[in-house]
Amino acid sequence: MLSSGSSVSILVVLDLLGIFVFAISGALVAVRKGLDLFGVLVLAGTTGLGGGFLRDVLIDATPPAALTDWRYLLVPTAAGLLTFAQHPRVGRLEPAVNVFDAFGLALFCVTGAVKAVEYGLGPAPAALMGMATGIGGGVLRDLLAGRVPVIFRGTLYATPALAGATVAAVLHTLDQPLWLTALCGGLLCLGWRLLAIVRNWQAPMPRGPASV
Amino acid sequence: MLSSGSSVSILVVLDLLGIFVFAISGALVAVRKGLDLFGVLVLAGTTGLGGGFLRDVLIDATPPAALTDWRYLLVPTAAGLLTFAQHPRVGRLEPAVNVFDAFGLALFCVTGAVKAVEYGLGPAPAALMGMATGIGGGVLRDLLAGRVPVIFRGTLYATPALAGATVAAVLHTLDQPLWLTALCGGLLCLGWRLLAIVRNWQAPMPRGPASV
Amino acid sequence: MLSSGSSVSILVVLDLLGIFVFAISGALVAVRKGLDLFGVLVLAGTTGLGGGFLRDVLIDATPPAALTDWRYLLVPTAAGLLTFAQHPRVGRLEPAVNVFDAFGLALFCVTGAVKAVEYGLGPAPAALMGMATGIGGGVLRDLLAGRVPVIFRGTLYATPALAGATVAAVLHTLDQPLWLTALCGGLLCLGWRLLAIVRNWQAPMPRGPASV
Repeated sequence: MLSSGSSVSILVVLDLLGIFVFAISGALVAVRKGLDLFGVLVLAGTTGLGGGFLRDVLIDATPPAALTDWRYLLVPTAAGLLTFAQHPRVGRLEPAVNVFDAFGLALFCVTGAVKAVEYGLGPAPAALMGMATGIGGGVLRDLLAGRVPVIFRGTLYATPALAGATVAAVLHTLDQPLWLTALCGGLLCLGWRLLAIVRNWQAPMPRGPASV
Repeated sequence: MLSSGSSVSILVVLDLLGIFVFAISGALVAVRKGLDLFGVLVLAGTTGLGGGFLRDVLIDATPPAALTDWRYLLVPTAAGLLTFAQHPRVGRLEPAVNVFDAFGLALFCVTGAVKAVEYGLGPAPAALMGMATGIGGGVLRDLLAGRVPVIFRGTLYATPALAGATVAAVLHTLDQPLWLTALCGGLLCLGWRLLAIVRNWQAPMPRGPASV
Repeated sequence: MLSSGSSVSILVVLDLLGIFVFAISGALVAVRKGLDLFGVLVLAGTTGLGGGFLRDVLIDATPPAALTDWRYLLVPTAAGLLTFAQHPRVGRLEPAVNVFDAFGLALFCVTGAVKAVEYGLGPAPAALMGMATGIGGGVLRDLLAGRVPVIFRGTLYATPALAGATVAAVLHTLDQPLWLTALCGGLLCLGWRLLAIVRNWQAPMPRGPASV
């Protein structure tokens, strides 16, 4: 969700695609939790837009881009309605959704980090904001659905996002061209996440029994 | 929670009444979940003020009105203390609380939408912000109480708020007089919500079994 | 998390110590809930920095200080990694952690209230913001870990924070010297909280059975 997206229309299209895929994953969780139509739409919208909202509120880029461009509201609504009406079919496509979701994650961690640098943050907090843009929607989705976020329970998801966001934040701070920044950061996140899906990599767990 | 409420004192009184009723509903949930006095007060305050906070943070109207006017803190505190001390009696009044809650919802969705338009949002996002003002407190209440928000599980609550907020956002964007805007938007939300209570209308659920 | 911390280095050191202790408590909850390394780091960061983030977003002091000073990111990360690797040992130190946590609470409720007054809030909302700075991280920690916040269920924790923040907000509004403000507000919060730990004081609960 880059604010200056009006001229760079390919970025907007990619951004909307990422939001669409994230929103599908939110709507599927809502259907499986037995939520009603409104719950499905809220989880679709929250998952698609929540990461960008979180970042924009923290870096003071309010109102968020999604509140000033109607397409950003239309896309998650459409994803929610589609999933509500066709959830058995959409659910069967979930392996494909996971792959597209990795694209969305790669895109969001790069655009989030770049936007944070442009709002004056240093590379370390900008990397954190990039990661938050990528994972924030899924965390909010899980909170609203009443479960501990899946990305805290072994899914290797946030680390690729942080890695990609770090590369993007550093390159953008060093004034590298945007295409190079996006390519390096995005490919690192995308490749790592896809490998984690294919090989079923898990995040490390604490060793030994937890004390009470 | 209109910011310019100082001169229009009737709006402030209505606003405080809405916050009071919302806060009662939050405090009742807290008592039933076995929370302590502090939990009761926090849930009262969050339910009464949370929707307005959410809207003000997103449209960059910070600090929220409730942090600059002591009456907005006094009212939910009083509602929380009253419920804490007299919860069996307050609980028996819950059917009446639900009717007043519908008034609060109608009021908040209108004032939220109007405020968002005044902060420069288009009608679609302003309608969304109006709905968020109306439902946000209840969603935060349920998250803090450890349950999936009731308005995602069949209660027909958010749709009337969205309808009323949409009417209010469109009329205010078209520069219609405030009384007309409030009347049309508010009555639509109020009537629909009261009918939903009386006739036990439910929000639509997804059909068929959810895939895993 | 005072913004003007660069010259008053002792305040920064105290602030970082408070964040460290809060982060340890967050990481311990994460380990006990069976979260992975990333979950441990997020809960450490959220518990250490969440209260300050919440306050800064509400009083419009964005971006939060923690996003402009790398030490504020380093400290909770270190606390999370330490707890992840050594959680049985860290867990055995928990009684000591609780005492240090009381120092962190006292510090945060004072700095939060003082900062809110400096951003133009009146004493009552500033006291609320001071309390929110102290307790916000723990509330977010519990939400992310999927449990109702412990401070809503009998732990006497928020009341000392509110008392200390109120004293600090009033004294700072009256232009008293900062050392006096910090001493009076901080000692009230610290002493009350330590007594509550030692004597196992509980917050009052509603009387009688809750109606359904």
